[in-house]
Amino acid sequence: MGDLHWKTAITKIKPNEIRLRGYRIDELMGRIGFAEATWLALMGELPTKEVGKLVESILVSSIDHGPTPPSVLAGLTVASGGASLEPCLAGGLLAISKSHGGAVEACMRTLYDGVKLCEESGKSPLEMAPEILAEFKKAGKRISGYGHRIHTRDPRKDRLFTLAEEAGIKGKHMELAIAFENELARSGKSIPLNVDGAIAACLCELNFPVFLANSLFLVARAVGIIAHIHEERTRYKPMRRIDPVDFEYDGPDDRSL
Amino acid sequence: MGDLHWKTAITKIKPNEIRLRGYRIDELMGRIGFAEATWLALMGELPTKEVGKLVESILVSSIDHGPTPPSVLAGLTVASGGASLEPCLAGGLLAISKSHGGAVEACMRTLYDGVKLCEESGKSPLEMAPEILAEFKKAGKRISGYGHRIHTRDPRKDRLFTLAEEAGIKGKHMELAIAFENELARSGKSIPLNVDGAIAACLCELNFPVFLANSLFLVARAVGIIAHIHEERTRYKPMRRIDPVDFEYDGPDDRSL
Amino acid sequence: MGDLHWKTAITKIKPNEIRLRGYRIDELMGRIGFAEATWLALMGELPTKEVGKLVESILVSSIDHGPTPPSVLAGLTVASGGASLEPCLAGGLLAISKSHGGAVEACMRTLYDGVKLCEESGKSPLEMAPEILAEFKKAGKRISGYGHRIHTRDPRKDRLFTLAEEAGIKGKHMELAIAFENELARSGKSIPLNVDGAIAACLCELNFPVFLANSLFLVARAVGIIAHIHEERTRYKPMRRIDPVDFEYDGPDDRSL
Amino acid sequence: MGDLHWKTAITKIKPNEIRLRGYRIDELMGRIGFAEATWLALMGELPTKEVGKLVESILVSSIDHGPTPPSVLAGLTVASGGASLEPCLAGGLLAISKSHGGAVEACMRTLYDGVKLCEESGKSPLEMAPEILAEFKKAGKRISGYGHRIHTRDPRKDRLFTLAEEAGIKGKHMELAIAFENELARSGKSIPLNVDGAIAACLCELNFPVFLANSLFLVARAVGIIAHIHEERTRYKPMRRIDPVDFEYDGPDDRSL
Repeated sequence: MGDLHWKTAITKIKPNEIRLRGYRIDELMGRIGFAEATWLALMGELPTKEVGKLVESILVSSIDHGPTPPSVLAGLTVASGGASLEPCLAGGLLAISKSHGGAVEACMRTLYDGVKLCEESGKSPLEMAPEILAEFKKAGKRISGYGHRIHTRDPRKDRLFTLAEEAGIKGKHMELAIAFENELARSGKSIPLNVDGAIAACLCELNFPVFLANSLFLVARAVGIIAHIHEERTRYKPMRRIDPVDFEYDGPDDRSL
Repeated sequence: MGDLHWKTAITKIKPNEIRLRGYRIDELMGRIGFAEATWLALMGELPTKEVGKLVESILVSSIDHGPTPPSVLAGLTVASGGASLEPCLAGGLLAISKSHGGAVEACMRTLYDGVKLCEESGKSPLEMAPEILAEFKKAGKRISGYGHRIHTRDPRKDRLFTLAEEAGIKGKHMELAIAFENELARSGKSIPLNVDGAIAACLCELNFPVFLANSLFLVARAVGIIAHIHEERTRYKPMRRIDPVDFEYDGPDDRSL
Repeated sequence: MGDLHWKTAITKIKPNEIRLRGYRIDELMGRIGFAEATWLALMGELPTKEVGKLVESILVSSIDHGPTPPSVLAGLTVASGGASLEPCLAGGLLAISKSHGGAVEACMRTLYDGVKLCEESGKSPLEMAPEILAEFKKAGKRISGYGHRIHTRDPRKDRLFTLAEEAGIKGKHMELAIAFENELARSGKSIPLNVDGAIAACLCELNFPVFLANSLFLVARAVGIIAHIHEERTRYKPMRRIDPVDFEYDGPDDRSL
Repeated sequence: MGDLHWKTAITKIKPNEIRLRGYRIDELMGRIGFAEATWLALMGELPTKEVGKLVESILVSSIDHGPTPPSVLAGLTVASGGASLEPCLAGGLLAISKSHGGAVEACMRTLYDGVKLCEESGKSPLEMAPEILAEFKKAGKRISGYGHRIHTRDPRKDRLFTLAEEAGIKGKHMELAIAFENELARSGKSIPLNVDGAIAACLCELNFPVFLANSLFLVARAVGIIAHIHEERTRYKPMRRIDPVDFEYDGPDDRSL
């Protein structure tokens, strides 16, 4: 044991035995879902069945949003230079930052701080929302997690909140998130909660660390970025100039489960 | 429609409607698992329930293997410089390449080529295995997907093959993979199929493209890398010198589901 | 000219003519140094001969500092996974961030702000230094650009300041940087200006943008990272465990020009 | 000295002394140019004055080629997501690969192999060129380092070869590179040597390792990528859609030294 000796609480490796947070990984395989295993890895404990299902739906909601987000365009652009899969994916993920995906973290901070203010002041989220929005206005800042370039009513948000209620996790963070939406509408601004804000509210209810705000998004969107990189490789030539708007969808027709 | 007009078959975006390979993403949320959605995104169609479960177990098996693989060490080293989550993850994923994770692709090539040789020659995998291994020997090459630095009998491999048989996908690629193992044992080399080789065999049975060989590993290992980055941030100071061997596990005790 | 039409002031490309900030690149080749061309690209104008020489010495000073900084260790770790040169370099550069290289930017902010305070208050850098340090102390913050893990008197700093004086650029930013050093010494703290602080002071004198603080370091250190990656490929096997302290130098003996 | 003890021949660090390949870095500062220091770091020895000047002109020639190459577009796309300088640069560099910048390495291999064939067979480059091109044709491969999307006569190539002749390094590799050009012209294909091919020929004359083929390009183009990232940050808003063709130059008018 030298000067640099250190400790890790994630995975224990012995010959022929791999334990993730204490559980044998071969026992987990086929018995718990990927979302539950992800929660276990990140949070240290298995989620309840209901929370696992909610986390899974967050992952599914985040898989792809077409080729316009910078993460996909960056991935495709790296791919057009001829790199292999890993650098293309890494290049894509680097584009996820303050302005792309960053709303989850910003909204989580607002909700954690807001609920703390509720608790300190004895006020309800409904009473607190206008005060916080007034603070934002005074500081010339915009609240994150509301409004969308394309969707006036993000279908992922409604579904997520339904699943969150079914999971029984609804609490003050979700209430505050909804109170902001209503307050914004009252002041004439139709900028409803978007999927980032909805994910933020759910994660706050689950006591998720702010540093990990984008973690589920990064893992899930990796799938979409990889799908687009693969399409780039199989349908297009290297060094293609990738137009960020002049494209159309030519995949499977509309269908349902 | 300009000169650069192009097409994508992955996701269709309309205001308030997001369709992944034709399915509304809010319909998928809460109804299919992340592994199934991943398969849909990458392959274009939903898998059967059984295949979905197998893909999920591949993802679960790949989440983490402790801090020694270069991908985790690279992620931790980037983290020690003070970067935010995304660059740390990207730096980690860049270490997944020919020598780390690359065995899946190499093994897939061997199995696809080998089964093609079986079909062309009318020989069985059992007959073909020694011939292919002899070719490898003559060329001075090692077969990928066999042997492990730590595990003499990788627990993930056995479990994966059990699940693959339950899913009813066992075919010539898995037979050939096992035939190689037996043939190696017969010639006195105890280098059994490892988890990379087992994943390769399963993916070949499912007609997975070689370019995507590492895709499931990249997505799943992203979780492990993120967990380690988070631990680095919360337990250790910036600019720490990270010893690649002098560490111990101090997480939860052994437990089972 | 479509909706997305945009403008760039860096390089003009016509068939058989490439102009960087207005100059034909083939005219620049062999007539100006790389440091001058770098300044032209980043700042829009050629530097004076003296400033060009100073910028060149900043670049030379930053090329390498052995294998212990996270940027080199991250590059080597990515290399050990088997990636090609570009991903190894990218992985290395990602480790340059707040805690590694970030002192230049932090110190530039302190010096720009400090000189502005001097100008607004009519005080000299000598008078202002103790006030600013007192503010830092009150806020529990450390001033960046002072002290070094290894060097008590960084040889690069002295040389850089000599060259800066020869270039005739010494002004209030350098004076303030020195005043901080003296003030810290007077209060019993021997944490002299390091190379990051010295570069920061020079760049402030040259009106360099804060956003570009690390740009010269990134370009120059890329050389060192590449040299180490090449050494990794030529001297060591893939998947090597890279000890961050247990290494020795075995290159050319001490020599001088 | 533990099991993982290793050696490095690049930089020796002692308190208050930093030696690059044996030379004190503070002695090098202000006395040798960045190109010479780069050569020293990568190759282990200082170049002659003439070779140093040639390497410097290779670096200057590679700084920028406008915003259309994938490396700049990837850097800008990452920037549009809001990342800081380092991840933007890393994302840009990842796009430098087989199809973008890779011609230098491919051309170096052809020239090294070709000159070896000359030496083994006693034939001159002039005699060997048609034979090698016939081989390429038979294999259905294109020779790398010839032809350009935009330039029919790359101004950087002529200048580089003039400087190489002045440096007195012209030998069989450059002869072979020119012989290919003439042979291609004779067969009716006007695809003259481009800057990648010219750099490849010069580096072969200097016995540069193939693994480092792109190293000078990576270091120099980092400057251009950084200049474009800075422009993106200062002129444009986050999440901008970056059109890969619909832009114009609005920088300084044509001028000369």
